[in-house]
Amino acid sequence: MPKRIAIIGAGPSGLAQLRAFQSAKQNGEDIPEIVCFEKQSNWGGLWNYTWRTGVDQYGEPVHGSMYRYLWSNGPKEGLEFADYSFEEHFGKQIASYPPRAVLFDYIQGRVEKAGVRDWIRFETAVRRVEFDNGTFHVTVKDLPNDREYTEDFDHVICASGHFSTPNVPEFPGFESFKGRVLHAHDFRDALEFKDQDILIVGTSYSAEDIGSQCWKYGAKSITVSHRTAAMGYDWPDNWAEVPLLTHVDGNTAHFKDGTSRKVDAIILCTGYQHHFPFMAEDLRLKTANRLATADLYKGVVWVKNPALFYLGMQDQWFTFNMFDAQAWWVRDAILGKVAIPSRAEMEADVADRVAREDAGEDDYDAIWYQGDYIKELIAETDYPTFDVEGACQAFKQWKGHKKAGIMTFRDNCYKSVMTGSMAPIHHTPWAEALDDSLEVYLRN
Amino acid sequence: MPKRIAIIGAGPSGLAQLRAFQSAKQNGEDIPEIVCFEKQSNWGGLWNYTWRTGVDQYGEPVHGSMYRYLWSNGPKEGLEFADYSFEEHFGKQIASYPPRAVLFDYIQGRVEKAGVRDWIRFETAVRRVEFDNGTFHVTVKDLPNDREYTEDFDHVICASGHFSTPNVPEFPGFESFKGRVLHAHDFRDALEFKDQDILIVGTSYSAEDIGSQCWKYGAKSITVSHRTAAMGYDWPDNWAEVPLLTHVDGNTAHFKDGTSRKVDAIILCTGYQHHFPFMAEDLRLKTANRLATADLYKGVVWVKNPALFYLGMQDQWFTFNMFDAQAWWVRDAILGKVAIPSRAEMEADVADRVAREDAGEDDYDAIWYQGDYIKELIAETDYPTFDVEGACQAFKQWKGHKKAGIMTFRDNCYKSVMTGSMAPIHHTPWAEALDDSLEVYLRN
Ligand SMILES: Cc1cc2nc3c(=O)[nH]c(=O)nc-3n(C[C@H](O)[C@H](O)[C@H](O)COP(=O)(O)OP(=O)(O)OC[C@H]3O[C@@H](n4cnc5c(N)ncnc54)[C@H](O)[C@@H]3O)c2cc1C
Ligand SMILES: Cc1cc2nc3c(=O)[nH]c(=O)nc-3n(C[C@H](O)[C@H](O)[C@H](O)COP(=O)(O)OP(=O)(O)OC[C@H]3O[C@@H](n4cnc5c(N)ncnc54)[C@H](O)[C@@H]3O)c2cc1C
Ligand SMILES: NC(=O)c1ccc[n+]([C@@H]2O[C@H](COP(=O)([O-])OP(=O)(O)OC[C@H]3O[C@@H](n4cnc5c(N)ncnc54)[C@H](OP(=O)(O)O)[C@@H]3O)[C@@H](O)[C@H]2O)c1
Ligand SMILES: NC(=O)c1ccc[n+]([C@@H]2O[C@H](COP(=O)([O-])OP(=O)(O)OC[C@H]3O[C@@H](n4cnc5c(N)ncnc54)[C@H](OP(=O)(O)O)[C@@H]3O)[C@@H](O)[C@H]2O)c1
Repeated sequence: MPKRIAIIGAGPSGLAQLRAFQSAKQNGEDIPEIVCFEKQSNWGGLWNYTWRTGVDQYGEPVHGSMYRYLWSNGPKEGLEFADYSFEEHFGKQIASYPPRAVLFDYIQGRVEKAGVRDWIRFETAVRRVEFDNGTFHVTVKDLPNDREYTEDFDHVICASGHFSTPNVPEFPGFESFKGRVLHAHDFRDALEFKDQDILIVGTSYSAEDIGSQCWKYGAKSITVSHRTAAMGYDWPDNWAEVPLLTHVDGNTAHFKDGTSRKVDAIILCTGYQHHFPFMAEDLRLKTANRLATADLYKGVVWVKNPALFYLGMQDQWFTFNMFDAQAWWVRDAILGKVAIPSRAEMEADVADRVAREDAGEDDYDAIWYQGDYIKELIAETDYPTFDVEGACQAFKQWKGHKKAGIMTFRDNCYKSVMTGSMAPIHHTPWAEALDDSLEVYLRN
Repeated sequence: MPKRIAIIGAGPSGLAQLRAFQSAKQNGEDIPEIVCFEKQSNWGGLWNYTWRTGVDQYGEPVHGSMYRYLWSNGPKEGLEFADYSFEEHFGKQIASYPPRAVLFDYIQGRVEKAGVRDWIRFETAVRRVEFDNGTFHVTVKDLPNDREYTEDFDHVICASGHFSTPNVPEFPGFESFKGRVLHAHDFRDALEFKDQDILIVGTSYSAEDIGSQCWKYGAKSITVSHRTAAMGYDWPDNWAEVPLLTHVDGNTAHFKDGTSRKVDAIILCTGYQHHFPFMAEDLRLKTANRLATADLYKGVVWVKNPALFYLGMQDQWFTFNMFDAQAWWVRDAILGKVAIPSRAEMEADVADRVAREDAGEDDYDAIWYQGDYIKELIAETDYPTFDVEGACQAFKQWKGHKKAGIMTFRDNCYKSVMTGSMAPIHHTPWAEALDDSLEVYLRN
């Protein structure tokens, strides 16, 4: 009997895994039986936009954290697939910071070409994964038919993402704040905050981008409260960066430096949790959001049970092509083409990764660290090699462009490390481009 | 070894079960070991208000569906405990439609007096209930310690509520509506909708009460869209009742009769689902929200495995005292004082309840049907008998008061069937009472 593999999630990571196996099959190799469980009705993971918040029509927590008018926050030249370029997909080179719909289209293009949609059971939520006697028992719920069932597998690959379960701290006074308090996960449309004074807590990508969106779509003012340090960009006039929120009182937010402001809404951009409620305790990854995750050999093999893999669990500078590097490696581990060492060796590998990450000093070190990780994995499989160094350089330029103008950085363009061609400058500056549809974006 | 009983949930139903066992113990009976698992950090179920929406600090779906300024929608004389009157708790008779905080205080008073808090493991979410060889295996997550564990029980009593997992239909155009779309479950503060034109879908209690709240706290207009029939109350001037929503287009909502309106926000008051993701398939209740639930003998015994019980799963005219009637009966079933018949007899009982409910014609029949159910259960245990007929009459008067004035019905008062005393008229008409705190409410 061929081995059976369960993949949890059909987002970019899970799809990378499907493509990796399909690529081996195309090369004439025998591959195991693959079953990918996806709770949403379509693939694409976070890139599959939903207007829903809270729980969905089946009572499952809504996975989507993306919102309308979201454009890539990094240059597409950092995430391009090595086996499927933007030029192959769109028939031409496109600008560097595509909106969500454009990237969704690109992700989908590769897996449509690979013909792997049949391997996915949509609207099927994984409820429980248990392991005994060398076998995984995976209990899932067929959502439309309101029916649970269990199947057995030799391997499980968990690719369920880690930017969906919000980290939602409480501040005194929230229980009586006279307005809306929400987490970035539930943010959907900047127009909901038009003409309002908004307070954002947090200083990372969500804070920066949701604040920028609200500014672009007409919020009256944006106040950003930081725990560690201000972002320090050259913000528009109706922005302010303030110390950490201490409490709210009616509609007034009070900060650590004793200042206060009246605000209409509070958006907590306070990050996400790695959350795997379906994993039995002995299989459940518990890690901070960092580059060297806990307990994963090569960043993917569960050291306590190497028949289990996790994909995409790192904090992310690189995304799609890093998921590819991981997926090709996991495929080859399952096919027996790369060896998994003893538990002690795996633990030493994890400790070494942690130490090397901790030795880094700044974002540039982090980018090169993750670039090196991708090179390491690619070297061990047949994933097409590419100029990872060039992609790191694109990230470095990007950081410079953000410092130069936080509302203009998306107007820059970069060179593809896959095809060598330069992206065109987009026809409309980001700050003026209110229509983020695919049709309008591709009009260049 | 004494039997072990797991109770899921410490809302009004679960607390009724704790009080039922404690009452037997107080009377000198031997009772089993009781463990109540409650995922929130406090008891009270829906009455334990939270500002949170979506998922909570541990990534668990937020249970709370209640909102600020919520007052009882029915007279308190219909829900009073037979063993703990409002007068006993507050030291005086109080007005008939208490706000949430007042009812929370009342619910809490009885169980504090009973001294059962130690039986509850707070911040412990039930993840999985399975049954084999006569034993229930209950897997729970200790949330603050991020640790899962399993314990065995002889009986499980599921009291996890059924007004927490929203039923959220989709209408065409939601994916591009330029405003907020939310379900009643995520509604928290009417002030979030001040000066807005809001659209409500649905015509039951949530629709009526959330619309009334928004009106009271300054919404510009309220439009209520119905699938079956308009509510038909004598609404204020800025209200309209319209046929079912067909689609939205930008900010314009279109209705079945061809009319349309510009709206700022859409609140789906479209009810809830019975949702038990933690129950193994062979234990999981699947029922509509009705008076005669599917598959529950006497409305509480799981016919497919009578070691399992469900409390409070009916649609609710009666609440707290009905949960009591059920909890006392379940206690006595477990103590062997009332007998559980054969499966065939249980199924006949369920069929009979369904047929009798279906034969009813209107809300009055439904009220008396549920009153009779309570009488039936009470007659078989030592729960204090009370004038159920009198409580049905209070509900009948209440319905008349609503017809007479939907914004004034809460200014009426009724007679307690437990103590015989009349409630005082509240010091402030509901429409003018903007402060819903316990302190202000009790100032009579
Ligand atoms: C707001 C936001 C903006 C971002 N913007 C960018 C960007 O501009 N560029 C970039 O490169 N990256 C961006 N990211 C990072 C993003 O994490 C990756 O691009 C990518 O989506 C990760 O892919 P994934 O497959 O690992 O996870 P996900 O995309 O989260 O996909 C996981 C999949 O698993 C499914 N799933 C989860 N639980 C279950 C279950 N129990 N049963 C069955 N299926 C399940 C989900 O439905 C989902 O389809 C952004 C992230 C966020 C939150
Ligand atoms: C908006 C709204 C307003 C209402 N107003 C009134 C009113 O005015 N008067 C009235 O009489 N009734 C009202 N009700 C009806 C309400 O259902 C009952 O009053 C009562 O709260 C039901 O009690 P319960 O214990 O059955 O369920 P709940 O109150 O829902 O309590 C269930 C408990 O189970 C816990 N739980 C759930 N899942 C798990 C898990 N997996 N693990 C551990 N714990 C879990 C929850 O945290 C919760 O504490 C209202 C309901 C709603 C939604
Ligand atoms: N395409 C886009 O434009 C876009 C938009 C949004 C998000 N994203 C992606 O989404 C992912 C997640 O980003 P994220 O910004 O949501 O999360 P994140 O990077 O993990 O940042 C979390 C932020 O929350 C703060 N925080 C956490 N707990 C806090 C508390 N108790 N009090 C105050 N502050 C607290 C942290 O502050 P400290 O610094 O003090 O720890 C940090 O600033 C990233 O991969 C990002 O690229 C992309
Ligand atoms: N204390 C309070 O003031 C208060 C406030 C709110 C709620 N509650 C309680 O909360 C509980 C739940 O009440 P609820 O009103 O939320 O739910 P509910 O009584 O189940 O009513 C659901 C409503 O949604 C409508 N609906 C469902 N699906 C729909 C669809 N696809 N399209 C259009 N309409 C749809 C139904 O219409 P049809 O009639 O056409 O089926 C019905 O009007 C009750 O126990 C109530 O007492 C109390």
